[in-house]
Amino acid sequence: MIEPTADPHVCDAAITRAFSVLGKRWNGMLLRVLGFGAGSFAELRRAVPGISDTMLADRLAELVGAGLVDRVVEPGPPVSVRYALTDAGERLMPVLDDLGRWANESLAREAASTR
Amino acid sequence: MIEPTADPHVCDAAITRAFSVLGKRWNGMLLRVLGFGAGSFAELRRAVPGISDTMLADRLAELVGAGLVDRVVEPGPPVSVRYALTDAGERLMPVLDDLGRWANESLAREAASTR
Repeated sequence: MIEPTADPHVCDAAITRAFSVLGKRWNGMLLRVLGFGAGSFAELRRAVPGISDTMLADRLAELVGAGLVDRVVEPGPPVSVRYALTDAGERLMPVLDDLGRWANESLAREAASTR
Repeated sequence: MIEPTADPHVCDAAITRAFSVLGKRWNGMLLRVLGFGAGSFAELRRAVPGISDTMLADRLAELVGAGLVDRVVEPGPPVSVRYALTDAGERLMPVLDDLGRWANESLAREAASTR
């Protein structure tokens, strides 16, 4: 039985909120890549193999909307657009590092091939 | 530019592996709920509002396949089936707690409404 403490019948709001962003394919990977430094659309596409242009555009818009990524227009010429983590996005990086360590140590290798 | 260190052109394998499981809707929430204790199918369905029976069955099979959840058959009578975290699943709990804290502190409230 699920323990009857702390309103166990509903997944807690903080985790629900976290996975409203991270529980969608690519978002966690994009944030981790941006943690290495700001990048252009083309650089991000190369950094996340398998993502399509449409999906990358959608995900970046979503991450901007969630306040985790800034879209930075550099006036140039030529004008260029880069994406960078906000402070809120940066604060996620240590947690993603822990998540990576957990995956390395605890997640069955086969899992990666099932998605 | 993305920093040219540590093979930056590819999202690192550990994060990719972590999000092969967690980057799918419901998986993170299901694991967090199971962190409160083992539960039956019906209990899990109630604990994660909005999930369908089909999706819950699919996700549980996936989490069992990834070695994060055990399907425990209790002989009864009546026979019953419960789901419980494995050790690997348990080791994720502190990271999920950190993720929840990050979401509470840093994730725009609006994000939760966009999924």
